[in-house]
Amino acid sequence: MPLLVKNARIVTSTADYTADIYCEHETITRIDRAIAPSTLPPCDILDAAGLITFPGFIDPHVHVYLPFMGTFAKDTWASASRSSLLGGTTTLVEMICPARTDDPTSAYDLWRSKARESVCDYSFHMGVTRFDDRTPAALKQIVDAGITSLKVFLAYKGALGVDDRELFDTLRVARELGVVVAAHCENQELVALLQKRMLAAGKTGPEWHEPSRPPYVEASGVHHLCAFAEATGARVYIVHTSCQPAIEEARRAAARGVRVDLEAVIPHLVLDRSFAERPNFDGAKYVMSPPLREKRHQEALWHALAAGDIATIATDHAPFDFATQKSMGKDDFTKIPNGIPSVEDRVNLLYTRGVCEGRIDLHTFVRVASTNAARILGLSTKGDVAVGLDADLCLYDPNHHAVISARSHAMQTDYSAFEGFEIRGRPRHVIRRGEIVVRDTALVATLSPGRLAPRIRTG
Amino acid sequence: MPLLVKNARIVTSTADYTADIYCEHETITRIDRAIAPSTLPPCDILDAAGLITFPGFIDPHVHVYLPFMGTFAKDTWASASRSSLLGGTTTLVEMICPARTDDPTSAYDLWRSKARESVCDYSFHMGVTRFDDRTPAALKQIVDAGITSLKVFLAYKGALGVDDRELFDTLRVARELGVVVAAHCENQELVALLQKRMLAAGKTGPEWHEPSRPPYVEASGVHHLCAFAEATGARVYIVHTSCQPAIEEARRAAARGVRVDLEAVIPHLVLDRSFAERPNFDGAKYVMSPPLREKRHQEALWHALAAGDIATIATDHAPFDFATQKSMGKDDFTKIPNGIPSVEDRVNLLYTRGVCEGRIDLHTFVRVASTNAARILGLSTKGDVAVGLDADLCLYDPNHHAVISARSHAMQTDYSAFEGFEIRGRPRHVIRRGEIVVRDTALVATLSPGRLAPRIRTG
Amino acid sequence: MPLLVKNARIVTSTADYTADIYCEHETITRIDRAIAPSTLPPCDILDAAGLITFPGFIDPHVHVYLPFMGTFAKDTWASASRSSLLGGTTTLVEMICPARTDDPTSAYDLWRSKARESVCDYSFHMGVTRFDDRTPAALKQIVDAGITSLKVFLAYKGALGVDDRELFDTLRVARELGVVVAAHCENQELVALLQKRMLAAGKTGPEWHEPSRPPYVEASGVHHLCAFAEATGARVYIVHTSCQPAIEEARRAAARGVRVDLEAVIPHLVLDRSFAERPNFDGAKYVMSPPLREKRHQEALWHALAAGDIATIATDHAPFDFATQKSMGKDDFTKIPNGIPSVEDRVNLLYTRGVCEGRIDLHTFVRVASTNAARILGLSTKGDVAVGLDADLCLYDPNHHAVISARSHAMQTDYSAFEGFEIRGRPRHVIRRGEIVVRDTALVATLSPGRLAPRIRTG
Amino acid sequence: MPLLVKNARIVTSTADYTADIYCEHETITRIDRAIAPSTLPPCDILDAAGLITFPGFIDPHVHVYLPFMGTFAKDTWASASRSSLLGGTTTLVEMICPARTDDPTSAYDLWRSKARESVCDYSFHMGVTRFDDRTPAALKQIVDAGITSLKVFLAYKGALGVDDRELFDTLRVARELGVVVAAHCENQELVALLQKRMLAAGKTGPEWHEPSRPPYVEASGVHHLCAFAEATGARVYIVHTSCQPAIEEARRAAARGVRVDLEAVIPHLVLDRSFAERPNFDGAKYVMSPPLREKRHQEALWHALAAGDIATIATDHAPFDFATQKSMGKDDFTKIPNGIPSVEDRVNLLYTRGVCEGRIDLHTFVRVASTNAARILGLSTKGDVAVGLDADLCLYDPNHHAVISARSHAMQTDYSAFEGFEIRGRPRHVIRRGEIVVRDTALVATLSPGRLAPRIRTG
Repeated sequence: MPLLVKNARIVTSTADYTADIYCEHETITRIDRAIAPSTLPPCDILDAAGLITFPGFIDPHVHVYLPFMGTFAKDTWASASRSSLLGGTTTLVEMICPARTDDPTSAYDLWRSKARESVCDYSFHMGVTRFDDRTPAALKQIVDAGITSLKVFLAYKGALGVDDRELFDTLRVARELGVVVAAHCENQELVALLQKRMLAAGKTGPEWHEPSRPPYVEASGVHHLCAFAEATGARVYIVHTSCQPAIEEARRAAARGVRVDLEAVIPHLVLDRSFAERPNFDGAKYVMSPPLREKRHQEALWHALAAGDIATIATDHAPFDFATQKSMGKDDFTKIPNGIPSVEDRVNLLYTRGVCEGRIDLHTFVRVASTNAARILGLSTKGDVAVGLDADLCLYDPNHHAVISARSHAMQTDYSAFEGFEIRGRPRHVIRRGEIVVRDTALVATLSPGRLAPRIRTG
Repeated sequence: MPLLVKNARIVTSTADYTADIYCEHETITRIDRAIAPSTLPPCDILDAAGLITFPGFIDPHVHVYLPFMGTFAKDTWASASRSSLLGGTTTLVEMICPARTDDPTSAYDLWRSKARESVCDYSFHMGVTRFDDRTPAALKQIVDAGITSLKVFLAYKGALGVDDRELFDTLRVARELGVVVAAHCENQELVALLQKRMLAAGKTGPEWHEPSRPPYVEASGVHHLCAFAEATGARVYIVHTSCQPAIEEARRAAARGVRVDLEAVIPHLVLDRSFAERPNFDGAKYVMSPPLREKRHQEALWHALAAGDIATIATDHAPFDFATQKSMGKDDFTKIPNGIPSVEDRVNLLYTRGVCEGRIDLHTFVRVASTNAARILGLSTKGDVAVGLDADLCLYDPNHHAVISARSHAMQTDYSAFEGFEIRGRPRHVIRRGEIVVRDTALVATLSPGRLAPRIRTG
Repeated sequence: MPLLVKNARIVTSTADYTADIYCEHETITRIDRAIAPSTLPPCDILDAAGLITFPGFIDPHVHVYLPFMGTFAKDTWASASRSSLLGGTTTLVEMICPARTDDPTSAYDLWRSKARESVCDYSFHMGVTRFDDRTPAALKQIVDAGITSLKVFLAYKGALGVDDRELFDTLRVARELGVVVAAHCENQELVALLQKRMLAAGKTGPEWHEPSRPPYVEASGVHHLCAFAEATGARVYIVHTSCQPAIEEARRAAARGVRVDLEAVIPHLVLDRSFAERPNFDGAKYVMSPPLREKRHQEALWHALAAGDIATIATDHAPFDFATQKSMGKDDFTKIPNGIPSVEDRVNLLYTRGVCEGRIDLHTFVRVASTNAARILGLSTKGDVAVGLDADLCLYDPNHHAVISARSHAMQTDYSAFEGFEIRGRPRHVIRRGEIVVRDTALVATLSPGRLAPRIRTG
Repeated sequence: MPLLVKNARIVTSTADYTADIYCEHETITRIDRAIAPSTLPPCDILDAAGLITFPGFIDPHVHVYLPFMGTFAKDTWASASRSSLLGGTTTLVEMICPARTDDPTSAYDLWRSKARESVCDYSFHMGVTRFDDRTPAALKQIVDAGITSLKVFLAYKGALGVDDRELFDTLRVARELGVVVAAHCENQELVALLQKRMLAAGKTGPEWHEPSRPPYVEASGVHHLCAFAEATGARVYIVHTSCQPAIEEARRAAARGVRVDLEAVIPHLVLDRSFAERPNFDGAKYVMSPPLREKRHQEALWHALAAGDIATIATDHAPFDFATQKSMGKDDFTKIPNGIPSVEDRVNLLYTRGVCEGRIDLHTFVRVASTNAARILGLSTKGDVAVGLDADLCLYDPNHHAVISARSHAMQTDYSAFEGFEIRGRPRHVIRRGEIVVRDTALVATLSPGRLAPRIRTG
């Protein structure tokens, strides 16, 4: 059934105006000063007065299906996508993570199959964890299927990480295919060697995770990637930038013509290293990579966000239970599953800490939480409120006060990294391709499936 | 009469879609997949098929009424605004330039009165060329009247330039009033002293203009302004950034939290210092400040534009005849009236050299030529295609080939700095607040007047 | 009487060897593997075994005769020079500080006359606090008299500070005279305005001194000076660099060819801002400009020292009593006399914190505490142990443990900023132009006067 | 027989004075205002009046025994050392270059045996081209034998280059042994891949050598090395820095505490890329790595030298004949033997282009051509004129005018890269450990052998 949103204060990355929005066939077909329902065929009507109508938010960096050391990350696509919708995010981009020995096409098929139970829209970064003679053809096939971004790890040597030759070839092929390459930038060898040294010195707790991958290790990865991007002409997208030196390297590269965009993730904006230093292994809840940094890097991230030096805010959602999974690293921090569950909280935390506390304005909020991700990753039907685009809308209550807690979140983990954090806004209604999926803050009972979002090539 | 634009491929800074646009009472009131004219009251209809429909372009930095050494810049608001419209620019922001001894309010009244003959919309930067006890009240009054940006010169000592105390107070008051401060950043003392030294050494030709204000003089001005912005918390907007070191200083400041945006102007993107070195005083045509730079700075500007480090492309339009005005500096380059007429050519040159030659994409083009200027300067009804905004549209022919020449331009000067330059696109139809002002590349005979564009405070 | 130093382990900025040193007529005339006293005329003999023989140390930046707000800094040349010798420093360079209204030549005469009671050697930076038509001739005369460095303040507006025109002219004349220009780099206008704002907000205690002149204020001054040095070609020497951004600006300028050297002072290396925040006005003891900074800037200074980015370590010795002088700023931190007495402690603290704690090696220690000052300031007979140079030697006990205290220091102030600080070495014997002035850590009773050290031009 | 040098104007890196120098048993034993020969045992006497007496110069980076593609570099130790002495260089440091499959100790023995015919003193960097379990013991043994520096290549993958794990382990062991690590910093993978791409595009001439290893490839190598140096705490010495970005990366690292010194080589200071672009394969004469750069990088190198940002000037002497060896790369620039013969010309070119043209002063000249190399590499008996040090002296005629030519040089190559370059000074007499080896610009007929110079550990 068509949907009419009345009295919407529409805030996009560039405009702020009031109109009615009419959605048919999953699409916004009309934006109008005033649409009289009487002139329309039968349709759902939502009154958006008092709310802010944003484009559906996009999380460009999540992990859902994530095998790890014989176990799996806690969320399924069913749970992760529901958490996302409750949090205002209507599109997720997940990474396909083949092991080095896996066939890329099989991995693609496997990950796609898992996403069939998603209730939000989605796409993928195709992980390139090995590059051999058959890789170009496989990548071409996957890109042709609409997966217009690749992903490489400079870290995780021997597992997911690529070597320099593979990196070069991946970037070269990406350039030829016209797709962007997402990259996890930490010098893999330095991490491995520093970890080894820490453990040898009896430094086994989660508080040693950050010192084993200090800022210069990340900055070194960024510098390295940018040199390879310069050599190949490829467009790169650096995920989860966590610290000032990493930002600086990327911006220096951009200034000399390297095509590089930066992503930061919500945990780095609101948490710092002291959380990972909490006693009794509690710090393990806060272990992710790149690690949580000293407080001053948070400030640098916010400045970079306001200045446009960071393009997107993602989550790197990777949910592991504290009791049974994080605990695998009890005696060795290198065995703590990496990741902080946050797909449900990203938008609210960014709004609260960013907009409400005066660090960014509403347009920047939309830009980094939705529009830029769409533009960089080629999600051409997403990221804006415009006729012809997918009718993905988040009707946001800008004055809701609440407290985040694992007791109330929809994510599957037994803890929240943001336990007790206040939020000062939340989605009231969420619309995904014209369908009301969250109404009055609750998921609608019956939801049609999400779909693979169409994408253009932006590399 | 209302206007219906059919079959528009609408390209904004963030979206690219096809729809019909309906405009009433100067405003876009409906954007719709398809609007049947039969359902509408009588209206004009334009078919936009084959064209690109952009938001009306905005030039955030022009001079029109410009007294200079007993003469005046060549354009009137009548001629400048017509040239602008032909070039796709529907809004101009001019600087009010009181002499140090002038009363700010009188200057404001004078400049506003001159703009009454404009056929495009307009606003002003209120020039602060002196700061005394009465200045805060005068500025408040002018800001309250909707002029939500100030402008200061660090250069032009003794004439328009402010000293450090005045700079601090202007920024402090701007912060209090919530308005942005535009700034011309060249260290005034260095320019004066280097000029003196050049002239003393018999270096009197236009080719010595650039060496008298080298990049480090501009970078020094930028560094200085940013320190004052940091001290006061004011938001600053640096006009006509011309070189790599100036960009670098501003971006370093932004990274530490200074609120600073950069403007570049079209002459710096397509001309270089060698033009000012042309023999027989021809170089005088290319004298502006900051001066045209070595070629490598052009490359830096384009990289910065693509990277988002430069927010806007303006003109600093300041038209002086070669024969009778530039010639005043025949024996002394410091007496050459500064300025390059370009208000008519900005959009076409940016499209040609930027979009057609692959340096920036269409969205970036719109962003820097329209949207960002609107957002930074608070032109809340401009810079985007959205319901409720002014119906300013530029229906652009993306495949028109032509050559720029003073013989065919509408500007009043006897020369073009871009004589013989190819362009590969131009406006076919231009709409200003719902009124077709350029139809089939020609100005419509009878045009209603432009108006002072409403603005919000963004500082 | 001639002097023979036996068994000296001589450590210079470049070499480390053992020899005997023979001194006649104030000069080193022979360095020899072994000199048999029996082959010599009657002479004093000192056995340097177990000690390190360094060249006499040089403090390139002190204030001794210092009128201030109707009072005077506590040291006389008699007391300051004795403290210096006890601390191993055999040469002081003081600033001549004429008020803006003073005649430079008279000021020069006055300051020289005060130094006649010095027992160490000395020279001066000629302060330029005003530049008018008669200044070049006066400076030429003073430079011809052997004062081959000028000094300017960008800070202290209205008192000692010069404006941009004066700065340019001073640098221009310095370039012509071939002399270096020392500069205090803090943007004077920003300091004045920030101070005003602090006081207006009731922030009157010494803890507000640093926030009134934050790092960017100093960096701005450095950037400014370097632009002027670039324009004029003058060689500059930036005194008391206190923070990372200031170092960075200077090194960036040096990389593009600006001739700039950096000085840091011992208080910034061993004290930080928290000292100035001590309660009960105790913080006033630590008020100097640039102010003591956050701890991380100390680390940056040490890194810069080790890397050769800071050329010299001075004191900016400016001794005021706590009880009667610092207290003038009880209700207004801007009235606290600026300065930390340290001329006696510089060498020992640098040795202890630098050499003993592994931050710098012995050669670097000599270089920054003696040799570089001699080379930059043209003290051609000082700064090294070589035949023909002044026989200034510091025979240092590298294993002496003691604690600094106002109770035991020779400086005239009623407090020590380093009260309770451990030192791990001290001068055992000090020789100034062949004369033993400190023997077994005690001043010799009768000392011949110091003299104005000859200097060459290095600008 | 002892040697007395009379009337020497001794210029060291820190002092400039006149004295007589007496040398016995290879050592300087006495420096004296005036030594009457009548008081001495029989000795050689040289009158140094009118000359400048410098410490013997040190070339910290040469290749002599250099197997390459089935042939050998042209010089033997006999010829290279003679060329060196004629050019004023009394000490050479050569790299031991084992193939990956070679045993380090055997390589050490082989290279040492070759140097037995040297007539100048020498030492080695021990090349680490593979790191396995036996490497630490082998390195310890070699270091214990007095070879207190290692060398690694980030370039030349598969041949001499180490991988990241090997790099880390080498630095770690160097830190433990207390020795410095010299490094050739070009990202090996980027070079290999860019070369491949060039060749595939038919770009086979010597003019493509530079584009195959652009500045960012070198900067990337420097950044990488510095990250590893930071992780391990090792002291590194970056050889043949050729361009502004590489310098910048190293200095940024030094500013954050990384222990890094830079070397540049004489070809990069006086030649630029245009030489390698000479027609008819003549450009092959100028092929070395890192390659000759655009002219502006020369300026950056000179600025860095004057500013102290570059510590040493070496040659990277690697002599190949044009006719028979460079020609191996006729159809493929990657097969051109890399290297420019320059061991004979370094000192004269640096003096001419540096000192005579006003870019550096005499002290800086000595520092970068001798003293710093000695201090960084631990050549504790070299690099200065002081009692107890080796009597290595270069009595230099500062006013000799001549022209460099292959017709007159002593090096074995059939060409000179500096053919026709003017020099404005040259060594008149050269003394190596008290022995006159060059007298009146000619080699003395019978020369005693050079020896392995003793070294201390400086890492």
